[in-house]
Order: sequence, then structure tokens, then C-alpha cells
Amino acid sequence: SIGTFKVAARFVATLKESDDPFAKLDSFTNRHNGSSAEGELEQMLRAVGVESLEELGNTTVPAAIQKKEDLRVGAAMTETEAIDYLKNMMSKNELNQNHIGMGYAGTNTPYVILRNLLENPAWYTQYTPYQAEVAQGRLESLLNFQTMVSDLTGLPVSSASLLDEGTAAAEAMAMCFAISRNKRAKFFVSEKCHPQTIAVVETRAKGFGIEVIVGDHATYDFSNGDTSGVLLQYPATDGSVEDFKDVIKNSHDNGTKVVLATDLLALTMLTSPGEIGADFALGNSQRLGVPMGYGGPHAAFFSTKEEYKRLMPGRIIGLSKDAQGKPALRMAMQTREQHIRRDKATSNICTAQALLANMAAMYGLYHGPEGLKKIAGRTHLMAQVFAEGAEKSALNVGSHKFFDTVKIEYPSTAEAQKVVDACAAAKINIRQMSDTVLTVSFDETHTAKDVTKLMGCFGIDGSAESFVGSVSGNGFAGTDFERKSDFMTHPIFNSFHTEHELLRYMMRLQSKDISLVHSMIPLGSCTMKLNSTSEMIPVTWPEVCMPHPFTPKEQLPGYYEMFAELEKDLADITGFYKVSLQPNSGAQGEYTGLMAIRAYHDSRGDVDRKVCLIPTSAHGTNPASAKMCGLDIVPIGCDELGNIDVAELKEKAEKYKDTLAALMITYPSTHGVFEETIKDICDTVHANGGQVYMDGANMNAQVGLTSPGHIGADVCHLNLHKTFCIPHGGGGPGMGPIGVAEQLAPFLPSHPVSPVVGASDKAMGPVSAGPYGSSAILPISFMYIKMMGSDGLKEATQYAILNANYMKKRLEGAYDILYTGNNGRVAHEFIIDIRPIKAASGITESDVAKRLQDYGFHAPTMSWPVSGTLMVEPTESESKAELDRFVDALLMIREEIRQIETGAMDRDNNMLKHAPHSPDVLVAEEWDRPYPREVGGYPAPWSKSFKFWPTVGRLDDVAGDRQLICTCPPMETYTEETA
Amino acid sequence: SIGTFKVAARFVATLKESDDPFAKLDSFTNRHNGSSAEGELEQMLRAVGVESLEELGNTTVPAAIQKKEDLRVGAAMTETEAIDYLKNMMSKNELNQNHIGMGYAGTNTPYVILRNLLENPAWYTQYTPYQAEVAQGRLESLLNFQTMVSDLTGLPVSSASLLDEGTAAAEAMAMCFAISRNKRAKFFVSEKCHPQTIAVVETRAKGFGIEVIVGDHATYDFSNGDTSGVLLQYPATDGSVEDFKDVIKNSHDNGTKVVLATDLLALTMLTSPGEIGADFALGNSQRLGVPMGYGGPHAAFFSTKEEYKRLMPGRIIGLSKDAQGKPALRMAMQTREQHIRRDKATSNICTAQALLANMAAMYGLYHGPEGLKKIAGRTHLMAQVFAEGAEKSALNVGSHKFFDTVKIEYPSTAEAQKVVDACAAAKINIRQMSDTVLTVSFDETHTAKDVTKLMGCFGIDGSAESFVGSVSGNGFAGTDFERKSDFMTHPIFNSFHTEHELLRYMMRLQSKDISLVHSMIPLGSCTMKLNSTSEMIPVTWPEVCMPHPFTPKEQLPGYYEMFAELEKDLADITGFYKVSLQPNSGAQGEYTGLMAIRAYHDSRGDVDRKVCLIPTSAHGTNPASAKMCGLDIVPIGCDELGNIDVAELKEKAEKYKDTLAALMITYPSTHGVFEETIKDICDTVHANGGQVYMDGANMNAQVGLTSPGHIGADVCHLNLHKTFCIPHGGGGPGMGPIGVAEQLAPFLPSHPVSPVVGASDKAMGPVSAGPYGSSAILPISFMYIKMMGSDGLKEATQYAILNANYMKKRLEGAYDILYTGNNGRVAHEFIIDIRPIKAASGITESDVAKRLQDYGFHAPTMSWPVSGTLMVEPTESESKAELDRFVDALLMIREEIRQIETGAMDRDNNMLKHAPHSPDVLVAEEWDRPYPREVGGYPAPWSKSFKFWPTVGRLDDVAGDRQLICTCPPMETYTEETA
Repeated sequence: SIGTFKVAARFVATLKESDDPFAKLDSFTNRHNGSSAEGELEQMLRAVGVESLEELGNTTVPAAIQKKEDLRVGAAMTETEAIDYLKNMMSKNELNQNHIGMGYAGTNTPYVILRNLLENPAWYTQYTPYQAEVAQGRLESLLNFQTMVSDLTGLPVSSASLLDEGTAAAEAMAMCFAISRNKRAKFFVSEKCHPQTIAVVETRAKGFGIEVIVGDHATYDFSNGDTSGVLLQYPATDGSVEDFKDVIKNSHDNGTKVVLATDLLALTMLTSPGEIGADFALGNSQRLGVPMGYGGPHAAFFSTKEEYKRLMPGRIIGLSKDAQGKPALRMAMQTREQHIRRDKATSNICTAQALLANMAAMYGLYHGPEGLKKIAGRTHLMAQVFAEGAEKSALNVGSHKFFDTVKIEYPSTAEAQKVVDACAAAKINIRQMSDTVLTVSFDETHTAKDVTKLMGCFGIDGSAESFVGSVSGNGFAGTDFERKSDFMTHPIFNSFHTEHELLRYMMRLQSKDISLVHSMIPLGSCTMKLNSTSEMIPVTWPEVCMPHPFTPKEQLPGYYEMFAELEKDLADITGFYKVSLQPNSGAQGEYTGLMAIRAYHDSRGDVDRKVCLIPTSAHGTNPASAKMCGLDIVPIGCDELGNIDVAELKEKAEKYKDTLAALMITYPSTHGVFEETIKDICDTVHANGGQVYMDGANMNAQVGLTSPGHIGADVCHLNLHKTFCIPHGGGGPGMGPIGVAEQLAPFLPSHPVSPVVGASDKAMGPVSAGPYGSSAILPISFMYIKMMGSDGLKEATQYAILNANYMKKRLEGAYDILYTGNNGRVAHEFIIDIRPIKAASGITESDVAKRLQDYGFHAPTMSWPVSGTLMVEPTESESKAELDRFVDALLMIREEIRQIETGAMDRDNNMLKHAPHSPDVLVAEEWDRPYPREVGGYPAPWSKSFKFWPTVGRLDDVAGDRQLICTCPPMETYTEETA
Repeated sequence: SIGTFKVAARFVATLKESDDPFAKLDSFTNRHNGSSAEGELEQMLRAVGVESLEELGNTTVPAAIQKKEDLRVGAAMTETEAIDYLKNMMSKNELNQNHIGMGYAGTNTPYVILRNLLENPAWYTQYTPYQAEVAQGRLESLLNFQTMVSDLTGLPVSSASLLDEGTAAAEAMAMCFAISRNKRAKFFVSEKCHPQTIAVVETRAKGFGIEVIVGDHATYDFSNGDTSGVLLQYPATDGSVEDFKDVIKNSHDNGTKVVLATDLLALTMLTSPGEIGADFALGNSQRLGVPMGYGGPHAAFFSTKEEYKRLMPGRIIGLSKDAQGKPALRMAMQTREQHIRRDKATSNICTAQALLANMAAMYGLYHGPEGLKKIAGRTHLMAQVFAEGAEKSALNVGSHKFFDTVKIEYPSTAEAQKVVDACAAAKINIRQMSDTVLTVSFDETHTAKDVTKLMGCFGIDGSAESFVGSVSGNGFAGTDFERKSDFMTHPIFNSFHTEHELLRYMMRLQSKDISLVHSMIPLGSCTMKLNSTSEMIPVTWPEVCMPHPFTPKEQLPGYYEMFAELEKDLADITGFYKVSLQPNSGAQGEYTGLMAIRAYHDSRGDVDRKVCLIPTSAHGTNPASAKMCGLDIVPIGCDELGNIDVAELKEKAEKYKDTLAALMITYPSTHGVFEETIKDICDTVHANGGQVYMDGANMNAQVGLTSPGHIGADVCHLNLHKTFCIPHGGGGPGMGPIGVAEQLAPFLPSHPVSPVVGASDKAMGPVSAGPYGSSAILPISFMYIKMMGSDGLKEATQYAILNANYMKKRLEGAYDILYTGNNGRVAHEFIIDIRPIKAASGITESDVAKRLQDYGFHAPTMSWPVSGTLMVEPTESESKAELDRFVDALLMIREEIRQIETGAMDRDNNMLKHAPHSPDVLVAEEWDRPYPREVGGYPAPWSKSFKFWPTVGRLDDVAGDRQLICTCPPMETYTEETA
């Protein structure tokens, strides 16, 4: 184990420019916050009616919760200083030869994918594809991912990715439970599953009240009819490929569903899960071109049979058509399963790992089925050669059916230890399953030389090459395990095998998608701020993206310094005692926070504290997470100003004072208001024995001005992909660390394979497959914090509030703005009410959203938290020029609506109802609309100098859900549009 | 000096896949060459009428010159192997603290520019903007560069960049000479110019017969009226800022032009060259955000007065309008000065450093004038502090007017040497001007700590901070040197100071330009092949892009291993004895090769051998280069098949047998044919005492099948940016190494500051400012060669020939194909004759070229080498699918032309004459053309699934040249189009 990782002292320290004439000039703060032109800040302040940013903060944030002390994250480093600082830190990581396995494998990310997708802001700054018309590129790529997964797993319906293999298994468990209508309270897990998967499933089971039985699947008795599902690993964690015929028959005979955790590369050689009868298949697609990243991010996959598709968690991309009947893609079943169903949910997942699923899909396209087979075959050969050498040297090879992992069993601890020591001396990481059992896994990145070196450590005589003659090259040939079915036969997987072709395909897709490289994406509650290049650069440093998640900590002092410093800084920013970096998304953070609260109450014997108060204005994940933690949800209403009804809260807190577990509250509120009563609310909950869970979605309005801890919360999660600059990646990755007060700290999650530094013995089980979640993207937030410094972070919050209030001022009069707080101010976001417009003109929030695409903008958040509205969050990193451009677009749209209101334009046949206008419609021979083509395509003065063109017309949501098509359609469908 | 750099043995070696079951599978050859789908190669071979690639090569390349031996560059490495190999090599380079100066400075490339421009294939794979309608993005950026240069230098006309400061100075000399109508044969150069600049000017002067006098400008006598120009350095090479009032007056009074080599950053503080009366300003824009790259690439700038604009070498971007009258940019004066004027040329430059000029321009936009002033001020402050410290420690500071460079003079060699030794021990590089004079330069990247450390080595007591109080902060304040005029006041330089704004601006520009990320660019003679990501990745490794070009060689063993191995491989590929990597472009290579031939003849006393035979089909650079070398050009005609007229050649070779210096010949011919007579031609030239210069433009048809050396040439240049994968960068950088036979080797260029390894004492002077040209892009070609290996390189040539012949086959019948060789085959390119079409329909090659834009393609080479034609070169890295798509477009266009031929469509009002169709035209209310809008915008079946939209209509070339506007126009011009 590892010693204490100290927070490294900075080797550079920058004073403010005015103080130090030698201060480096590549300051980041000015590149992130605010405007380019002189005098703009003053103009905006004047418009809002304040003298300074300071005054704005002081008069917007309730005085009672203002924090007077500065943040303690230090002075801002410049961009080059921060890069040097982190590089120096991360260079301490050692990259040993890796054979650990356990669901993570080395992979060669094709450079063309690395640079033009993972490192490309046009891909990584995309938002979740809710506005399908300007997202056809990544929707197509995700459809490719789904098709690849369906083909390889032999199950027809695949989702667009989940967070990691562990949580995917937990989702499968919840589905099995739901399929049994919550009647079968047992879930069986084979002991041959990966230990981190077992542990995540066990953690998750607790909240649902499911009993997890871990054991030998061959002997488990399914006949009681109380087991909803069985989870098997294929190939197993020790490398063995087991015959599941009996267990699957047995399960199905007894009404138990079968879940196979599996490996996509292995499935190119093995009979697919679908073919052997599995109901669900899941796993990690990481080895298809996504670096291990010390745990992530990577895309978990999940597929199932037709009959369960409407119960699937997460997102599914489906084929539909646009207003002109042209094939077009969208997120399917959005209105049903995809959107979080509050307390009816069986899952709280509301993101995916889109960027990483896209990488895996592109890897699949680049190699094609034949390429994947070759990679699998070579990997398998190395394992075979190793096993052959081991047998020839009289070692005990634990299984003779394996894909990439070979198990060696030793008669004594001492003999096994000798090998472990030899590997350590040779700087090779292997897996020590037990005192006497070792495994070694092989992957695409290994060479014959690596294999020979590894064999040397095991005392095997001879080189890798020397054993090739004695092995078959396919250990499954002629057995039931041998895959005979085709996969990835669609032309899409057989067309882009040269670099030019793949590059152009990626660029074609990219060009269909709007992202932050085009214009602001003012998504309320999603904080689409700048994801700077300097923040992104460290992500693909080898020392950051290459380590296996279970690498011995001693080899990664750089990572552990970074974790410690980031935890310290986030604790300071949130005002909390301790931070856990493990949760892999905001929703996971919520879940973890609530589980910590439950564990805290339990630890005090308060086992009945299960009531969770949740305002009706809360995001759907709040009740969903509470439900998953086994809490009983009691809703609290809001008053007409959008504020939480404090009287009702007090009444209910009092009423449930013996069973009150927690209040979940978002601050500033989901209505974009700093509620004055927040301290009182926290006090009330505490007074009645509850803990306060603060949803960190709106943290961008707090940083430096106040903090959850300062306000009185006990726990909050941080959406690092909102406030702390991790890009949204077109729908993931995200990260959701949580901060907690001292009493909750002992319960923060640890990890069974790689214990979290500082974890207590009361720690809950893991909530993610990796000990530090998606470690490889943490440098993004780290860089952001270092480059902003205490002052810059606070200033960012002030700018975020200023920008929102400036826009609100400019829009007032034209639109109704819902909800304001102190001094008529909003926080960092505000809600535009479209309901009166709809009443007068028939124009809906959706029409305005689609029309904004014609103006070159992505729509704000639609109908959330209030139906019939648009919620705008500009963030601090948009300049006045861009804010003005967006406001101008909305004002011009308002005038278009006025034409309908006055009757000058038809209510159904107008530029809003027909929006967006794709160029094929505008260029068509026929044009019978009551407005000129130019109004359709070039509505704004800036359109002609730069125009982003939606590639399809408005999506038909109903058609797509009626007939769900979620794998690549035949090529005729594509060519139809070109006929 | 340095010892011998051995060619490193490979630490990885890959056998062919079939031989080694463990061979890594990320083979590059398949990604670069050929097609994705199975069976395509066979289909193409069948179409061409051969059985195999081997047969194709054997029956296309004349038997007499086929090379039977394999190349000796070794087996192909895979992508990851090659990256590891080069990384391992380059990691040996040391990056010491640098204060060398001499026209190169450390700079912080803003990360947003680094990743989204320099590392972005959408920028670096662009071609030269000859097709302006699909190049408005980079044209705008280059206009920004010109405006910035004009503003800073105070001279109204700037070009879009030259190769380096040394050659820019040489170009200025040639201009001065030309302005004097070749009457004034002397050119005076101040001894205070950078030594490499002086040396490049001296080399260049030789060919022109100009006498260069190097001396003290204060005492030079201009009154003889025989001096065409004077070159001064401002600030001087020793850092001093001199008062040029007298010398400028004196020059002008005597009709001598004044050229100032200068520094753009210094000019933010110093009175501009224009204001003090200079006629020309030039220098290196490298320190504006472009890494030093051990010599390049960077963009030299060049500006002058209105009266000399039509004599300017290189490219000028100018404002014009499109067919609809909308403002649009293009290369100005293309038909006059820009195109190489054969033997009337005063310069052979036919490229620029567009990519690097764009970087510098973006750096200017990002920082704006105020940002640049701050960077200059801080840099100046460090120099002031150092000088102050030096004086306080009683050192002799050589000048008190300096910007960033301080000179210290020592009374003895020993005292100076002590400091030199101390710096070396501290791993600091400084400049040793002489035994007793040292200089230190400062730049943006230095910190106070660096300055203090440096002062320590000079024995100066105290820290940088301790001297701040004693300096003024602006050593020019209140003097004549102080800059008072504004610069970069245009809004374009004051609008993009946040990262989002700059990112979006870059993306907006990028989206206007077609590049290899969209579709094939079949530019005959330009070889627009794949520039793979793996080739590009090393370019921005710090150990590659950071070193100062005059870093002591001992610190850069990695670079020198790479040079040695690349020289060896290129020598093998060309069949030559030795290679020089110094020439910075193909034209520079030509010039260097011819200079070597001249030096060879001179060395043998053959001083009268000045006749250079050049076929009339040659590229204009051939005669231009010959002219610059002082050779007398004798043209040789071609026969009706496009082949060189051998009889005429023999006759003239015989005729000039006593004065024959060389034959310049392109092979395969510029007509795309492997001439059968080539060996005979070489023999004839040799028999008459001449040397054979082979133009390497078409090397892509030779590699592995034959070679210049094998054929019998004595020298050839290699356009690394063609055959060896350096991307075209939207019009530069390029690289033009030359290979020579043994007798010419002693004359290859060396370098006065950093002698080239292995240079003989007969070496000619430098032809580039850097000893190894643009060293930082050599890894691209290195990676290409390593990843292709002997077999892959040969296969690439075969594919290049196959692709050309396959396209020719498909186009035959529809179009006339000019010139074929053996078996009716073309080489790697072919010429489509549009003249018969023009005769029948009035449709010109230009109409076809513009119409191709509507189909999503960049046009082939237009009207070269034969007027009224299009020359197509597909290269090996285009798949059958892409070739077919391009052929289909040409065939569809042929049918459109047929409509005109038959009278179904008007001769002047048709889809070709109106091409290209920008969307604003198609979407306009009015449409009175005799074809539907869709025919304009969506002519091809693939257009609707992906369409690249030209942003302007056809350029009006005449309007732009009539009134030359080559700086940013007022904002009204831009907004006009949006009104």
C-alpha cells in the first residue's frame, strides 16, 4: 500500500500582474472569463444597475450566506505554468508492462481517432443530442456503436452506453428485479465475476433491498423462484471460458433472467451471449481503442432482447424521419424511459459515455470485423503461447479454455510470491488473485518480446516464438464456444479502413453537429462553459491515459498527488470536510451522497430514518436517486415565486421528525433563484434529525461567493462536467464527486481491489468500477482550478451571474421572465416563459427552440423545470458580443411571433413551425410557403457571413418511437435521401 | 563541434504479417495505400488490363530504367512502433534554457492555436488557395497577417509570407537589383545583420552576379551610384538599436534602396521602418506564437511601399468581389508577378509559409495590440534588468539602446570563457559573438528566476527583482526610437481575446475551406496524398519543436540521428550519394542543385559552362532557378506526344558542348508520361559535358520502381511536401532537400553559424537561414518512410500509377486524355483536354474547375502544363470509392456540357458558367436561371448526405487586380454582405 500523498508545493507562484512585473502573461482567467473588447464589462454592469462585479455578488447572493473569506486554492497559475506544474507531477507516474486484466486492457487508439475525435473540441464540446436536427453526426456514430454491440453480443437491442461495467451490472440487476415486479428479492452473482463488479452490485443492491448471493453458479439452486437474475462473466475473471448451458437452462426454467458480463473482443471468437440464451449482455468497450485512463472514462455497453427494450436504462438512439420524411436519427423513447421518471424510476442514470462510445465505434469501423478478428486472434495466440510455455515448464495452468487470460495455480504461497517478486523486479504488473493463484492477461499492445519477458518471470524456458508451433491458434475451434455467426456485416463497418476514409467520415459527422466551437450553448442547469485546450491537453498524456486502474499505487505518485490536491481544493470550494472522487456522474454522486446519509443514520441506530423531502421543482434524478437508496419520498411544494414552500417544509419536517433522513435541495434553485430562506431550511431539517443533501448542479452560481458547507448542507455532489469544465462530450463523460461534512466522511466509498486513500473501515462499497471514477478526466478540473486561482474562480461566478442578469435585462419586455430573487435578480440562469406566447400565437417553446437553430444556436433547456419554458444559462465564458447575438436572435424571433399574433403570418404555416430549415428544403424547386426562402435560411444579419446548417428538418418523434429501429438500417435507407 | 551521428539501429523490427504471427497489427501501409473494401484492387487492375501491381509497374515504367533491387530503408514499422522509435530517439534532445537570440525567440504558442490550427488537418491539409471560392477562410487569415505586418512595419503592402528571414533578405536584394534595372551591381549589407542572413544573401548574390559588400553602414560610401540597396538590421544582431537617420538619407540621396530586417515584437515599442524611411521591411514572424523548431518552419514577413508592390516576390492576398458583387478574397496579381515568370523571373519562390503565417496572425488576434505591447514590455524589462545588474557588477554593457538583447564585452578571452563555462554548467545557452563578446536575449517564455540564474552565471549579484526599481521599463521613452503610432487598430485585432471567441473564429474560417478532410484534391504535380496523424504527431513534441536553430549540436543527438537516418534513406530512394536537407522548398532545392552544378564546373575550371537546357514543358521554376544561378537558358521543344524532342536535344547538346552546364528535366514528364528516351537523354548530356538536374516534383511515380540516380541524373530535389507527406498547409510549409551524385557532394551547402555535419570545405554558402531548413517537419517524412518500409514505398508508387490509370480508363470516351506512354499508360497523373469542349460549347477548364466545387471537389491543376487542360493526380492514398466519386462528378459534368453542346442549355447562362453556387444565391428570393436551384446546389447523388458549401460565388480576378487592397478592409465591407 501507499504512504500519504502530500499536496505538492507549487514550484511556480504567480502574483497578480500589477504586483509582479515579471509575471507571465499567458494568464488563463482573461481567456475564460468575460469579454474581449474594452469597456464591455462596464456596459453590462450599467445595464444590470450595479457598479462592480463585487456589488452584483453582494446584492444577488443573500447576505446571510455570503462567504467573506477568500478561497484557499491559491493564486492563479498561467496556462504554461499550470501545464508545467501538472506535467512535472504526472511524470512521476511509472508505466510498467501491464498484464492485470479484470476488464481493462491495453489498446492502440488509432492516432487518427485520438487526434480528430478525442482531442477535437468539435466532438468533445458537443452537448447531449436532445436537439437532434443539429446532432445527426454523433447520433449516427452512436447508432454504429449500438449496431456493433448488438452484432457482437447477439442481442438485438443495445443502448448508447452506460457508465462502466460495474454500474451496468447493477442496472441489469435492477431490471431483473423490475421484470419480477419487485417480487424476486434475490440476485445471484457468480463468484467468477470481476471483484469490482460484484462489489458495485452489492452496494447498489442495498438500496433496493435486494439480497445478493455470490457463489458457484453450477451449484446454485434456482428452484425457489425467488431469484430475479443471475450474473455470469464470459470469459470469467480468471480467464476461464465456462460452459453456461446448464446454468442458463436452469435459470430460465425457474423464471430467472440471465445476465452475461462479457468482452467484445473475445466475442469475435466466442459464441455470442444471445446465441447461448442470455437475456442481457454488458461489459466495457474500453479495449476498442479507448485508453484505460486509470479507470476511465470508457463506455460500458448493454444489450438485451426485444422484449425488454422499453425497460432499458440510459439512452437509445433510434431511426425516425424528419418533417419532409427524410430518414433522421434521434434519442428514442425520450418521453418514456429515457427521461428520468422521478420516483417511478428504477435507475437514475441520465447520461452516457457518448464520446468514448464514439471512439469505440470508430475503432470498430476502422478495423472492421476482419480487423477485430485479427486483433483477437493475435491476443489469444499470446495467451495460448504463454499457457503452452507454462505447461511445458510444468506449471499448473488453471483452465484450458481461455481467451486472453491465463491462470497459474501454485502449490504454495512462497512459490507464487517468487513469481510476483520477479515480475515486480522486471517492472511487470500481473494479477495476484490469491496467495497461490496468479493470472496474466494479454492485449493488442503486447509484443512477443513482452510475452517472453513475462514468461521469464514465471520461470518458463524459451521465447514466445518457440511455442508458436505447439499451439492451435484458436482454442475454441471445433467446440461449442467457437463463434460461427457473422457480425458487423453492415457496409458501414466495411468502408472506412484507410485513414483518409475514416478521417473524412469523422469530419462529415462532425460537420452535422453544433457544438461550442460554433456558438454558445445556453443550456440552463447544464453549464456549457469553455472547455479550454490547456485543460484538455493533459488527458491524453501517456502517463495520464495509459495506467490500468488497478496499477499498484506506488507506481502512480503523480496521480495520487493530483487526487489529493484536487480533493483538498474541492473541499475548500464546497466548504466540506472531505471529498470522494469516485462517483462517475452527477446522478451517481447523488446516489452516493444519499447512501452516505443512510449509512450515517444506520451507524447511529437511526434505522428508520428513511423519509426524504424533495421539492417538486427538483430534477428528476433527485427522487430517482432517493428511490434507489430505499428512501421514502415526501414532496414539498413551491410558492408562486418558484421558491420552496417553507411553511410546508417546516410542517413536514416536524411531522416526520422521527423518520426524517434527508432533504434534497438544489441551490440556487432549479428556477435560477438564490432563495433567501435557505439557511432557515437547513436549520429546520437539522433540527428534525435530517441531513441536507445539496444538489450541486448549480454550483457555478456559488463558487467563491458561498458554498454548500457554508450554507449548512451536509453533502453535495459536483458535476465536474458543468462547473469544473469537463466537456460534455456529446452526452458524456461526466464526473460527480461528492463533498461531505465531517460526520458523513467515514462512509465515503472505498474499493475492494484498490482501496481509496484515507478510506475508513466504515466506508461503503464502491459505486463505480474504478477507485477514482474516471480518473483520466480529473486533470481537466484540476487545471481549471489551478489556472483560475481563488480570485478567478470567484470572478467566474460573478461573471456567470452578470451574464444571466444582463441577458434577462435585454429580454425583459419582449419575453416574460419567470422567477427572480433579491432585487429582481436571477442567479446564473433564468427562465423564459413561452406559455403566454403559445396562448396568443400557438407557438411553443419547441418552435422557438427549433427556430434558434436557423439562427445558428443550440436551444436552451426546454420545458424544464417548468413546462412551456426555456431556461437560459450563459456561463461566465461567453463574451458580451455572443450574449448580444443570442439575445438578438431571441428578439428577432419574438418579432416573427408577433407577425403570427397580428395575423400577418399563418399560425401553422410559418417560419417557426417549419423550423429548422435544412438547405435541401430551401434549395428545392418547390417553395409554397408564405415567407421567402431567405427568411428560412438567413434570418439573422450574421447568417451570411457564417451559417451552421442543420442537415435535417424537424424530427418526427412519434414515428421513431412507434417503430423502434436502433441498429444501422440497410443502405437503401441512406441512399433514399440521395435519389 | 559534434562527432559522427550514427544511424541508430532499430529497436523494433517488423516482419510481414504472414511471417510473424506476433507482428503488431497497426500496420500503416494499409491505411495509406489503396482501398477499404475487398476485391477493389482486383477490379481496378482488371479495368487497367493487368494482373497485378507488379505487372503494372513493369509494363508502365520503361524497362531500361526499372530498378531491380529493393529499397534498403528496411521493413515497415507499425504506427505505434514508429512513434515509439522516434520518441525514443528525440527524447535524447536536451532542452536547455535559451538566450541565443539571432532572430529566433522562445514563444508561448497559445494552446488553442496549437491544437486547433497547427495540429488540425482541416488547416494543415489545405492546398494553396488557387481555388479562392473554397479557400476564403485562410485567405482571410493571411489578409490579417498582411495587415499586422503592414501596421507594425509601417509599410502599406505586405506579402502573405516568405520562407525565412535569410531568403527574404536575398529576395529584397534581387528586388533592389531589379529596381536598378540590373544596373547597380553592388548590394551593401551592414555587418550588424545576423550572420546567417549575410551568408544567405552572399550565396544568392553569386548567381545574380551581384557584389555584396559587408561593412559598417555608417562609413559606407553610397555616392558612386553603383549600390542598388542597403540591408540593415533593426535591432541589430548584437541587440543594439541604431540610429539609421543618416544612412537612410545618404542611401536615398544616392538612389539606393533601404531594406530593414526587423523584429515584429520590437516594433511594438520602436518607430516603424516605414516611419524612418525604409523601402522594405522583412524578418521572421516566428516569435509570434510559432515554435522555433530547430530552424523552422516559420513565416518570414516582407513589406514595402505602394510603388514596389508589383515587384514583390511570393504571394499577396487581395480583396476582390465575387460574381454577385460580394466582397471576396483571392491571391492578387496571380497572372502577373505571382506565377513564376520562367526566365523573366527575379525570384523562383512559388510557395509561402501559410500555415505558420496563419499561426502568427492568430497570435496577433488573440493578444491584440495591447497584449503584444505587454509581451514586448516584459521582454524588454528582463533585458533592462539584466543590463542594469551587469552595470552594477561593473560589466561592460555594449549598448544602452536595446530591445531584448544585451551585449557584454570582456577585456579578455579568459574572462568571457569563464562565463561561457558557467552557462554551460548551468545548462544555459547564450551567444558567443566572439572570443570576448557575449550576448543574451530574452523572450516571452523566460521568468524572473531564469533571469536571476543567468545573471548568476555572469557573476552578477542580486536577483532579477532586485534591479527592477532601477530601470525605466522603456529604454526608448522620450527618444526618436519610441513608437508613437498606433497599430492593429482594425476591429479584427480587438475582438477575439477570449478562448471561445478565437476558437470560434478559427472554426468559422476553417469551415470555409476545402481540404483533404473533405475529399480528394487531385492536383496534378502537387501530390496531395494522405498526411497521416502519426506522421504529424512528432512535429509538436517539445523536443522537436522547441530547440533554437543554433543550439549546440551536442544537446540534440536525437535530431542528428534523425537527420542522418533520413539522409541515408532519401539517398537510397533517390539512388544518390549524398543528400542535403537544407533547402526550404522545392524551388530552393532546384536553386541549390543548380548552384552545386555550377560550383562543380567551376571547380574543374569549366567556368564557361553556363548553358542550361530546359524543355518547354518544364515548370516555370526551372528557368527561374536557372536564371537565379546565372545560367543561360536554352529551351528544348516537345513532340506532339508531349515527349521531349530528342533530336533537338541532341542537336543543342552538341551545339553547346563546350558551354553546356546542365539539362533540367522532370521525370516522369510534366505531361505525366514515363518517357522511354530518358536514359539516352542523360547520356547525351553527359557526353557533352553537362550535368543532369532532375526535377523531383514527380518523384511519387518513381519511388521503389526506379530512381533519379538509377536513371542517370546527377542531382534532384525532393518535394517532401509532395512525395514524402509533409502537408501543404494551405500554401506552405514545404521542404526541398536535394540528392546528388558523388561528384557534386562536396558542394552541398553548409552553414556559417552551425556547420552541417559532413560538409566539405568546398561547401557552398547556406541557402536557408537554418542549417537543416525547416527541421521540425522532417519527422513527418521520417515517419512516413519508416512506416511504409521498402515494400510499402514501392507499393505506394504502384498504387499511384494504378489510380491514375484507372481514372483515365473510366474517363476515356467522355474526355480526351492528352499524352500517354508505353502501352497507352499514363504515369501517376494525366491531363484532360478541355480545348475541344471549349470549341464546341464555350465551356472552359475554369468552368469545369468551378463546377467541381458544386460537386464537393477541389479542382485539379488548371492549364498547366498545357493551357486549356486539367491535370489530375490522384495519389496512392485515395480509395477506389473516392476515385469513382470524382470520376462520376466529371462524367456528370460532361453530360451537363453536352446539354450546352446540343443547345438544350444556354451557352452563357448555365450551371457551369454560374458555378460555384454558394447557398445564399440558391436561397435568394429571385431565381431566373434555366436550371433548377437543386441542380446548382445538389448536382450529385452524394450531395445531400454531405455537402461542402462554397461561401462565395466565382471570384472576379480583374476587379481585384485593378485596385489592389491587401490589408483588412473597414468593417463596413464585411457587414455589407449581411445587410
